Amino acid sequence: VGEKLQQLTTQLQQISDVNNAMAVMGWDQEVMMPEGGTKARARQLSTLARIGHEMATSEDLGDLIHAAAQEIDGAGYDSDEAALLRVAQYDYDQNMKLPVDFVAKFAQLTSEAQSIWAKARHNNDFKAFEPTLEKIFEMTRQGADFLGYTDHPYDALLNQYERGMTTAEVARIFNAHKPALIEMIAAIGEVENRVSDDVLHRDYDIDKQREFGLSVIEKLGFDFTRGRQDISTHPFCTNFSRDDVRITTRFYKDFINPALFGMIHEAGHGMYEQGVAEALDGTPLGHGTSLGVHESQSRMWENVVGRSKGFWSWAYPQLQAQFPGVLEDTDVDSFYKSINTVKRQFIRVEADELTYNLHIMLRFELECDLMTGAIKISDLPQVWNDRFEQFFGIRPPTDTLGVLQDVHWSIGLIGYFPTYALGNLLSMQYYNTAVAANPSLPAEIASGKFDTLLTWLQTNIHQHGRKYTSAELTQRVTGGQIDPAPYVAYLQNKFTDVYGLG
Amino acid sequence: VGEKLQQLTTQLQQISDVNNAMAVMGWDQEVMMPEGGTKARARQLSTLARIGHEMATSEDLGDLIHAAAQEIDGAGYDSDEAALLRVAQYDYDQNMKLPVDFVAKFAQLTSEAQSIWAKARHNNDFKAFEPTLEKIFEMTRQGADFLGYTDHPYDALLNQYERGMTTAEVARIFNAHKPALIEMIAAIGEVENRVSDDVLHRDYDIDKQREFGLSVIEKLGFDFTRGRQDISTHPFCTNFSRDDVRITTRFYKDFINPALFGMIHEAGHGMYEQGVAEALDGTPLGHGTSLGVHESQSRMWENVVGRSKGFWSWAYPQLQAQFPGVLEDTDVDSFYKSINTVKRQFIRVEADELTYNLHIMLRFELECDLMTGAIKISDLPQVWNDRFEQFFGIRPPTDTLGVLQDVHWSIGLIGYFPTYALGNLLSMQYYNTAVAANPSLPAEIASGKFDTLLTWLQTNIHQHGRKYTSAELTQRVTGGQIDPAPYVAYLQNKFTDVYGLG
Repeated sequence: VGEKLQQLTTQLQQISDVNNAMAVMGWDQEVMMPEGGTKARARQLSTLARIGHEMATSEDLGDLIHAAAQEIDGAGYDSDEAALLRVAQYDYDQNMKLPVDFVAKFAQLTSEAQSIWAKARHNNDFKAFEPTLEKIFEMTRQGADFLGYTDHPYDALLNQYERGMTTAEVARIFNAHKPALIEMIAAIGEVENRVSDDVLHRDYDIDKQREFGLSVIEKLGFDFTRGRQDISTHPFCTNFSRDDVRITTRFYKDFINPALFGMIHEAGHGMYEQGVAEALDGTPLGHGTSLGVHESQSRMWENVVGRSKGFWSWAYPQLQAQFPGVLEDTDVDSFYKSINTVKRQFIRVEADELTYNLHIMLRFELECDLMTGAIKISDLPQVWNDRFEQFFGIRPPTDTLGVLQDVHWSIGLIGYFPTYALGNLLSMQYYNTAVAANPSLPAEIASGKFDTLLTWLQTNIHQHGRKYTSAELTQRVTGGQIDPAPYVAYLQNKFTDVYGLG
Repeated sequence: VGEKLQQLTTQLQQISDVNNAMAVMGWDQEVMMPEGGTKARARQLSTLARIGHEMATSEDLGDLIHAAAQEIDGAGYDSDEAALLRVAQYDYDQNMKLPVDFVAKFAQLTSEAQSIWAKARHNNDFKAFEPTLEKIFEMTRQGADFLGYTDHPYDALLNQYERGMTTAEVARIFNAHKPALIEMIAAIGEVENRVSDDVLHRDYDIDKQREFGLSVIEKLGFDFTRGRQDISTHPFCTNFSRDDVRITTRFYKDFINPALFGMIHEAGHGMYEQGVAEALDGTPLGHGTSLGVHESQSRMWENVVGRSKGFWSWAYPQLQAQFPGVLEDTDVDSFYKSINTVKRQFIRVEADELTYNLHIMLRFELECDLMTGAIKISDLPQVWNDRFEQFFGIRPPTDTLGVLQDVHWSIGLIGYFPTYALGNLLSMQYYNTAVAANPSLPAEIASGKFDTLLTWLQTNIHQHGRKYTSAELTQRVTGGQIDPAPYVAYLQNKFTDVYGLG
């Protein structure tokens, strides 16, 4: 390794170290910290953020990247060195585009905005949030200008979470499967009473839920010598290296879904991070490559595997044994239908596989129009409800159940929502490719064997970390680009069966 | 507040923020981190240590301290401003004395030494640790030269943990109570069988132990909205602000002491930190002032309060109720004697109130002689055992039970041990002062009321943080200096009673 590359690697690792220290403190804040710690923790995180930002935008770092790039000139595109230089240069350029003052002001605004939003949502009072949301979109427009774009200001935002993705491309992908979703949802709406999810709302002891969930994700392949699971109000996954991955869950005594699918979902994120190549750990390449690809992993394990008939033919007898007397009257086929209930309802985070992407499309369209000014913040509740009704055939009775439901805008995450839907689409493309390479996969899953799938994901996706962009990775893995058709086919197949349509 | 003082305060707070971030990561490492996280955590801590050290030794900081000192010229000695400048200048000078390379090299050496020591202790193989210990003392001698001293190189070490304390002063204090301890221990040795601690080794459910311990320390005044208690292999207390204090405990199914006295001990440290004035939080003044004063707090709650007859006249019925069937045959007087058993045995951390300081004196004398070269590392096991026999009348059968028992030297903590003994002495001086001011204190404790004592400690000791040195604080509180006589009187009184001496 050349001298400059060595120096660069050290500097980049130190930036990662500061970011990972912040991640530890963030995890602690959500999972462990006593109430009194809030004020000091905010100050500590802000100091580390300032230090990390200074390190990531130093002139010295820019020079080193330049020098190291010359040093490794000629290294193959797929080499770790070339990838490190690509990503380091990209991150540096992105960081340099946003003025320090702007970053600090936006952090301040969104930190105050979150509690204003929470109160407004609680009180069903959009007007109380309106001026703040106005400011957030105003600054987000400025941010897009700083970041730069060719066609649409929203491109600059998308690019932050799904590098290279454009507004036009998302629109094309969404429009290509929106009608199919609307049609299926309408068809199911007519026979909604064929499936009930009452069985998920029985009396489930929380300790036993946790025990069961832990045994499932361990079996899937989450490595507890390099990770742990805890409880938090909002479930999340974070990590401080590939060898220290933390996931969280929220449990309810009368609702078993979070212990089953919430845990599998976060473990899916976690296994992605645990699978990044050791050589990339602690470098800018040492994480999952994009939010969309990340979501493809969590959704694949949660839905494609975890909500499949095969999986439950293996898991259901164990679930019954874990809760004696609770599930005796329910057979596996009936349980399978319960966990695949489709419901037209107002809240995105409660949405099933079929309706989920439609909730995202609504937000995508509104975000684009808000960025261009085609719709005004003050008209937002009205427009939200109108479009929601067009999509789902039902109208939110309150803004709490409508435009105020998500935390994202209040914390400045605009352009983030589409990655959830893209993840759903990718999950099916990747899974189909894995099955094509390993035709016995579905049978293995039905017998509680998951290592073939996990190894395939590690080899084809996880190990690369950020070496390839989402588009590059999808090309390598599937030989093509992101495509909604496989996901739509999967949904049609599955829900025709569950709801006896046809 | 003047401009320079404002700037200085901000810089000092940011240094505290980095140190507190390291403390969060250290806590996580001991309490939460999965095994796999070790390597990355070491790298992250090392990066933050480097950043913190750079900030704490920057020329800019030195200039600011100088400028701010001129700005507040004339502020009273007791003012927060004057104290901040005193401590900032002292810390800066101390940090500047140690060359960066020396600090890094010593950190490297002691980080490797800990596992060498652990293995040597496990194998009862002093020779395997000898060359490493040789290097540690050699570098410690260099360190003492860097730090500077007038009379004895050990002064420079003591000063790190108990600012202003000297070797001569410690020797005077120790020699003033050593004969009394040896005499009492010998007297009890003749009637050792009068008291048994078998009752502490019964079968105690661990969850119930923890529940009881938590209820006790909450009653004492540990604030759980500003702290928490967890489990770790080695019990400790750490904090990231006065409002986020973490203590840990290790539980044993067949030994209830750690759940009782270990928890009270750490809560004593914790309440000291929780009691520091809010205005000092996040500044260099925002911690307990010295290890000795810290230990005075933990020991006062653990021993003077927690091992008193009065305390158990209140607590024992509750302990009996917590463990039905376990303690029915034991009355409170018998239990009180069990928790105050005196035993001549080899291990410091298992020592009782009477023998504890003697274990420290042994280490103090050896450390001084090792620093001057009066004894050689290679002779250490022999010398340890000889002196131990002089002190206690029994001889360690192995080095594991002798010179290899403590972790301290392996991690470079030389000059640290005396603070434990000084803390014992101070605990009684402070407690007597509190009782003189509040004669009803013992009666209050016997009725489970602890707020008068805690409030007195907060007012007279805790709130000041590092504003005063240990000696200054003791002068303010007691009107005099550290003095072993009250502690010896307390021990004579207590153990004459427990052992029925005449």
